[in-house]
Amino acid sequence: MAAPDPARLSLNTATIREKWGLAQAIEGCARHGIRGIAPWRDQLAAMGVKDAVRSIKSNGLTVSGLCRGGFFTAKDWMDDNRRAIEEAHALGAQCLVLVVGGLIPGSKDLPGSRERVKEGIAAILPEARKAGVPLAIEPLHPMQAAERACVNTLEQALDICDALGEGIGVAVDVYHLWWDPKLEQQIRRAGNKRVLAYHISDWLVPTRDLLNDRGMMGDGVIELPRIRGWVEGAGYTGFHEVEIFSELNWWQRDPDEVLQICKSRFATIT
Amino acid sequence: MAAPDPARLSLNTATIREKWGLAQAIEGCARHGIRGIAPWRDQLAAMGVKDAVRSIKSNGLTVSGLCRGGFFTAKDWMDDNRRAIEEAHALGAQCLVLVVGGLIPGSKDLPGSRERVKEGIAAILPEARKAGVPLAIEPLHPMQAAERACVNTLEQALDICDALGEGIGVAVDVYHLWWDPKLEQQIRRAGNKRVLAYHISDWLVPTRDLLNDRGMMGDGVIELPRIRGWVEGAGYTGFHEVEIFSELNWWQRDPDEVLQICKSRFATIT
Repeated sequence: MAAPDPARLSLNTATIREKWGLAQAIEGCARHGIRGIAPWRDQLAAMGVKDAVRSIKSNGLTVSGLCRGGFFTAKDWMDDNRRAIEEAHALGAQCLVLVVGGLIPGSKDLPGSRERVKEGIAAILPEARKAGVPLAIEPLHPMQAAERACVNTLEQALDICDALGEGIGVAVDVYHLWWDPKLEQQIRRAGNKRVLAYHISDWLVPTRDLLNDRGMMGDGVIELPRIRGWVEGAGYTGFHEVEIFSELNWWQRDPDEVLQICKSRFATIT
Repeated sequence: MAAPDPARLSLNTATIREKWGLAQAIEGCARHGIRGIAPWRDQLAAMGVKDAVRSIKSNGLTVSGLCRGGFFTAKDWMDDNRRAIEEAHALGAQCLVLVVGGLIPGSKDLPGSRERVKEGIAAILPEARKAGVPLAIEPLHPMQAAERACVNTLEQALDICDALGEGIGVAVDVYHLWWDPKLEQQIRRAGNKRVLAYHISDWLVPTRDLLNDRGMMGDGVIELPRIRGWVEGAGYTGFHEVEIFSELNWWQRDPDEVLQICKSRFATIT
């Protein structure tokens, strides 16, 4: 299988967030020849949207996605998602990633929480369409169902997309989805229309933390080329976004080293 | 919703394994009026199968399941599963629970590992049928896909059952399956014929360890009565087996206290 096009690499800034703010991340990407970037909104707020837009443009980067909208089971979800759509529009982001939220606080009602998520997405979708910002539902690993996202499979996310129509799709993150026996089938179902983002990292054995122990591509057990083949087979030609939450390893390292390793692993492993 | 029949409570000995051997667990169940028990094979070997059979019978207990066969991706799986079937037969176990094994060692080939699991189950099924031992595939949480079981949803397990025919079903463990958007649908699909065991515990928020941080019923976020309703609705009338791996809490406690709490939570929470 041919290596992916180096111009398709994107850096999700979570990967180096402990050491670099957004301004440094933008310059770092430019310095390392990484063409895509996916910022988080807290970092965007810290830098200021206007400055971020200017710096991203002047460095010739593309925003592969803005992290994140969602959390429809929390209190102020509507205003927060409106602002997220505006910011994604300002950045020219290829999508706004939705981490949809877990159980309604204080509740064990999983089906009810899922219904609320669906209603929340439906409520913000018209504004997203108007702003030209595609919404990307990111199914999160089932171990995050209670706390972060009660959408946990690609099939479930695509059922929501199909119910809601245009302007919405999915973020396919190998960390969250690699285990799913229906992954190939559902990526095919999603097709180019619905796959709005592709996130890469690796599943470590053993995994020591449910949130922040992701691996660099090649250090774990995910068969990355196989999944890439499915995603490309569905017609996806967008960025491959490296997103690594790693308290114990990658967040401790020099970000320049991390970016260098991302690049070389992207070329040889994924 | 009416409380479950107290006579349907079973103790999976993993719940108190740090403090009690099998002989103590059998006597403890009898003392607390718990009518079912599910031993692990290492404890069974330590006690001796004959002694265990004798003690379980004389205390009037039923073996709701033997833990475990499986690990078809490991080396000596065939002999080990033959012995497990013999032991389950000797105990009159209502099923032999199959923890099917994760990735083939040294491999990232998840579809290939799943194929090997299916072939392994097919290979032992005739002997299980001959011995009158139903095999219960236990889908494990996706976070265990690499290391312990590459069967991770009820749908996937039932597809295997349907391909293999009679004498095989599933163990429905709420800890592994509670997050699944298709759980209700697939329990209905399974029906009384395929649901061979029902395991209960709870999902803690936060969960601090991927293996050994399960909660007592009521301490987490699983809506146990709802899932029990689905299982009973499918026609299941067997035991409700408490299985709690808990390094940090329940394994540290006096097993008599643990059994007492299992009983009261079973009556009030599940």
